[in-house]
Amino acid sequence: MQELKERIERHINQLSEFTATPENGTTRLTYSVEDLQARNYIKDTMKEYGLQVREDGYGNIFGKLDGTLINAPSVIIGSHFDSVPNGGAYDGPAGVIAGLEVAGLFVKNNVAPRYPLEVVALVEEEGSRFGGGLMGSRGMMGLLSDEGFRSLRDRDGISTEEAMVKIGLDPSLPRRRDPKTMKAFLELHIEQGPILEEKNIPIGVVEAIVGLTQLEITIQGQAGHAGTTPMDRRADALVAAATIITQLPAFAVEEGQGTVITTGRLNVFPNGANVIPNKVVFTVDIRSGKEQNVLNVIEKTKALIHSVCNDNIQTSVDQLLYIQPKQFNERITSLLKKQSEELNIQYCSINSGAGHDAMVFSDYTDVGMLFIPSRDGLSHCPEEWSDSVHLENAIHILFEAAKRLTESEG
Amino acid sequence: MQELKERIERHINQLSEFTATPENGTTRLTYSVEDLQARNYIKDTMKEYGLQVREDGYGNIFGKLDGTLINAPSVIIGSHFDSVPNGGAYDGPAGVIAGLEVAGLFVKNNVAPRYPLEVVALVEEEGSRFGGGLMGSRGMMGLLSDEGFRSLRDRDGISTEEAMVKIGLDPSLPRRRDPKTMKAFLELHIEQGPILEEKNIPIGVVEAIVGLTQLEITIQGQAGHAGTTPMDRRADALVAAATIITQLPAFAVEEGQGTVITTGRLNVFPNGANVIPNKVVFTVDIRSGKEQNVLNVIEKTKALIHSVCNDNIQTSVDQLLYIQPKQFNERITSLLKKQSEELNIQYCSINSGAGHDAMVFSDYTDVGMLFIPSRDGLSHCPEEWSDSVHLENAIHILFEAAKRLTESEG
Repeated sequence: MQELKERIERHINQLSEFTATPENGTTRLTYSVEDLQARNYIKDTMKEYGLQVREDGYGNIFGKLDGTLINAPSVIIGSHFDSVPNGGAYDGPAGVIAGLEVAGLFVKNNVAPRYPLEVVALVEEEGSRFGGGLMGSRGMMGLLSDEGFRSLRDRDGISTEEAMVKIGLDPSLPRRRDPKTMKAFLELHIEQGPILEEKNIPIGVVEAIVGLTQLEITIQGQAGHAGTTPMDRRADALVAAATIITQLPAFAVEEGQGTVITTGRLNVFPNGANVIPNKVVFTVDIRSGKEQNVLNVIEKTKALIHSVCNDNIQTSVDQLLYIQPKQFNERITSLLKKQSEELNIQYCSINSGAGHDAMVFSDYTDVGMLFIPSRDGLSHCPEEWSDSVHLENAIHILFEAAKRLTESEG
Repeated sequence: MQELKERIERHINQLSEFTATPENGTTRLTYSVEDLQARNYIKDTMKEYGLQVREDGYGNIFGKLDGTLINAPSVIIGSHFDSVPNGGAYDGPAGVIAGLEVAGLFVKNNVAPRYPLEVVALVEEEGSRFGGGLMGSRGMMGLLSDEGFRSLRDRDGISTEEAMVKIGLDPSLPRRRDPKTMKAFLELHIEQGPILEEKNIPIGVVEAIVGLTQLEITIQGQAGHAGTTPMDRRADALVAAATIITQLPAFAVEEGQGTVITTGRLNVFPNGANVIPNKVVFTVDIRSGKEQNVLNVIEKTKALIHSVCNDNIQTSVDQLLYIQPKQFNERITSLLKKQSEELNIQYCSINSGAGHDAMVFSDYTDVGMLFIPSRDGLSHCPEEWSDSVHLENAIHILFEAAKRLTESEG
């Protein structure tokens, strides 16, 4: 047992060093130098565990342990390895490490599966570089067109393919994966909320993922000199944006039922202290377990944005992402609960407030997901932390579940 | 006459090409590649007109036409050549060009002055790269300590001296200028407001410059995942900032008398769509012709910022700049009016809503300043434009005034 915990901690520590902000959390943007460093570490670990390594045309990494059946679909286990800016060491990597160590347990225990086992490390789940999020899993399942992928650019105008080539990835490799090659998908993730810690329960079996949308709002006003433009002649895009952002939280509170709304990204143009802003672009992220709550808040937000328009202020709303609430596969959920019981690890059912790659795969294959507690409920910040004991528990449950899934016909 | 107008237009067009945003106005940050290109153009033009060229330890450029008196103070004429991001082609360069062409008229008309004439092109008036503004003139007059100058860094953490060395400037050159070496300072600037255009008057003789302050506000909250942090547990730094920014314009309107308030620069951290912002830093620029208005708005702003503080939201206010309203020298102002009358060019008295380098020099030498109309009152944007006919008029007035000032003892 001790040995597995040590490996987990070594992986977490190693991966957390591949950050663009060494003193201030994990900043690992997709196709960055830090992506390349983490990528090489993951690939090396896969090889060490005897897995066949390949990458696809998005840079998603796969490590495969062949099964005894020929051309059979894989049981896939993993998560993403990108991060938000100044995020933590667990959101994503915890699930990749779980995949690696479940494969490690297969090899160590000489388990020769009937169906293949595949470990996956996915790109751009957070969308922090190219926007939108869940890019690796959505792309894999054909939810992103080739043109759509190629047209994505980061804040500096660098395209996805340019960025891939820069770190030696090959964008001409196959991108889509036939769902028939997937037998099941398992993902471990940190909870990123306070529930498991408050209940003092080490494992959450995820029953559903909340619905979410991401809007991108553009407010266009008129630039002018801060000292010479009278107050009554201004079309200040930032004052208009601030008026909107101030009123958004009330929309979520009115809906209740755990509905949340967030403006996380906001950029001011031209962003000089003595220039009246002529453009502000910001995101609005809306989530709820009930789709109607999301739809209601979208309507209220659009009406509010419309209300700030006048002759000098123009607005536009782009919907970057819309995902319905998702129920996970009952057979896999039951299997995960049964394995927890057999291993004497306490669990509870839980819903996920965040979108995850598992949510994307759930339209194409049977999906199951485990949460482990997040200290103080914190995530997407340098303070993000989960006990490696919980990771170890989850890996044992996933190992037992993966053994069953790689054996059974169903 | 035609010849001068053509030279003016050539200078404007040439300098506007030295921009980091070719399709979107002039972006010429201090010590950038574009600074170097504009610098070389200005120095070449000075040499072409027979001026002795030197730079100081800030990179301010001086072109000197010797007088017949030995060791006599100079009549200095010029402005700055940096820009705001996505600014226009006239704010700054118009005044540098006026300086160059006044010197050109001295040479062309074989005017041998008693006191030397100096053309100056100043750095970092806008403060767009290193913050605060008026750096070149303030530094020259000893208002910036060597340590203060060295400690300034741009958004990428590059220091002033590192940036200077990068474009081949020598930070070890002398920085301060003895005010005794200055006999007078003349500056031409675009109005950056609507008054001259509305009155259809080609020249404004500036009587005073408004007082101004720049505050930098930091709001510190707590980051967290946008999907998993309940609304009632959030300490969202951006919502707190938006609440403040929404209420600021009313403070200026309440004061009246032309008081203005602007948040031009705002940066969100970590600035990811699915992360609750833990930090927002923004500027508040306050200006008025009456100092009491500025002081009142500062007090109200500080009280408002204090009111958003709680256990989870911390705030701080830094005063980056505080400048009292300034009356210009009456003798020079009268001289400029007299020369306008003699040349049959209509003028009016005007106050400046913006800070200018002339304001800094007015504590150390006799200062006079002319405004020319700005189309639609616009400035600090790509649409900024002034008719070269107005520039030509101003240059003739300044030439006549400079002839008088380089002759007389007073």
